[in-house]
Amino acid sequence: MKLIRYGAAGKEKIGVIIDGVRYDTSAFGGDYNEQFFEDNGLDRLEEFVKANEGKLIAISDDERLGSPIARPSKIVCIGLNYADHAHETNAPLPPEPVIFMKSTTSLVGPNDDIMIPKNSVKTDWEVELAFVIGKKASYVEEADAMDHVAGYVLHNDVSEREFQLERNGTWDKGKGCDTFAPMGPFLATADEIADVDNLKLWLTVNGQSMQNGTTANFIFKIPYLVHYVSQFMTLLPGDVISTGTPAGVGLGFKPPVYLKAGDVVELGIDGLGTSKQTLVAYAKN
Amino acid sequence: MKLIRYGAAGKEKIGVIIDGVRYDTSAFGGDYNEQFFEDNGLDRLEEFVKANEGKLIAISDDERLGSPIARPSKIVCIGLNYADHAHETNAPLPPEPVIFMKSTTSLVGPNDDIMIPKNSVKTDWEVELAFVIGKKASYVEEADAMDHVAGYVLHNDVSEREFQLERNGTWDKGKGCDTFAPMGPFLATADEIADVDNLKLWLTVNGQSMQNGTTANFIFKIPYLVHYVSQFMTLLPGDVISTGTPAGVGLGFKPPVYLKAGDVVELGIDGLGTSKQTLVAYAKN
Repeated sequence: MKLIRYGAAGKEKIGVIIDGVRYDTSAFGGDYNEQFFEDNGLDRLEEFVKANEGKLIAISDDERLGSPIARPSKIVCIGLNYADHAHETNAPLPPEPVIFMKSTTSLVGPNDDIMIPKNSVKTDWEVELAFVIGKKASYVEEADAMDHVAGYVLHNDVSEREFQLERNGTWDKGKGCDTFAPMGPFLATADEIADVDNLKLWLTVNGQSMQNGTTANFIFKIPYLVHYVSQFMTLLPGDVISTGTPAGVGLGFKPPVYLKAGDVVELGIDGLGTSKQTLVAYAKN
Repeated sequence: MKLIRYGAAGKEKIGVIIDGVRYDTSAFGGDYNEQFFEDNGLDRLEEFVKANEGKLIAISDDERLGSPIARPSKIVCIGLNYADHAHETNAPLPPEPVIFMKSTTSLVGPNDDIMIPKNSVKTDWEVELAFVIGKKASYVEEADAMDHVAGYVLHNDVSEREFQLERNGTWDKGKGCDTFAPMGPFLATADEIADVDNLKLWLTVNGQSMQNGTTANFIFKIPYLVHYVSQFMTLLPGDVISTGTPAGVGLGFKPPVYLKAGDVVELGIDGLGTSKQTLVAYAKN
């Protein structure tokens, strides 16, 4: 299945995509949140969709998409999980995964604007494959890890490099600004992706190719990441883990290249659709 | 007011403490969560308590206390906010606040057991004053900051030093393990604390004094912290910011001293009560 959330920001309704057409599933009830995943929502939703075949109401493609999952308890990110990206940022290859956290208030829809933070001069892009936890995970063995993965989603791990690297703190400072986690267009359930370790992922800025990678170059693969992160914290249903970005970020250019108001970022991953964000200057909301 | 949550873990009911006696406020409805703080819950609760004076049902002191607030969207921590603690950990004085995040799954009641994580050899203590956000905070001016603070709570920012400092990642790895955020006994609303910059805070291990500090030694005070953190992420009602720990943590001893199963940690802050945790070995739950 492909799950979507659509409508006005903060008031999203739930839906699914079937054969390229978006359908409303509000009658199923609830939201795609912790409770949904915890209560076996994916199986129940599949039954609901089958039981209502031909009766679901189609949604216009003009409707705004929100993040395909509701705000999770946490967004955990893996740093430097592609060798080429580690090289371009002058970071050594990690002997074990780097973990940092993104404030969940950064979550937005796949085609929403990215707001350049106040006083930001180094806002950067990162196309990433993220996965969503379907079942509580604590001290999970690698062999059992995929039982805890509900599906996959396209994520732009927007990053402010000065905040992240030059402002005397952990990376968290430059990762969780509002609008810094455009997610979607849809959550693809795990069965939709035949080989998650062999997906192309790409990103352009104003039409110019910046990132062209493949998940075949993961340093640490998803089962290991579930195992690893679950040694340090319990992952709840609906939680997001983002698996890192390949080479081609703004920080890696000599001299570095950063985003400015009016720039347009587009990104995509095989089987997970595409998203497109326009950069806007800081404005107090 | 002093707010409490009590009862079985995960099924806590809400209450208040009046003149040292705990009372149930379940009839008020809901929980002490984001929605409560957002919907002016503190004022409404005060009215409810007044309207029900003499009619509230007392709770036994034997009842377990939970965290006085429900799981927030985030727990943001300030590192090295007391000069004496920076010195003992061989860290330079921070030119601006250090920020890191604690997984919200670490939240437990004030007197719950602390579970030493699997493979942990460096589990450490940190008595901290935490404050709770009452009103959404984004790019807040220092002069307006206190309008966004609902109240204060005692917090043990339990930390695994090897995970935090030696495992190739940000501090987040050693801060968010299950049971690593005992919070409470109660949330004191801001009006209960006459001078938050002049509170003694202390911690003992097995009855032996380890930390004896005062918030008079904050490097960065609370209004500045609200302002500062709100430049990097939006703080939601119910979010927790923990303000750092004074000298006397296990990492600061030569050689360092860490917690082991059976150890008992007690801590307290003037006006915010005391808490007591027993260390237990890792056990798969």
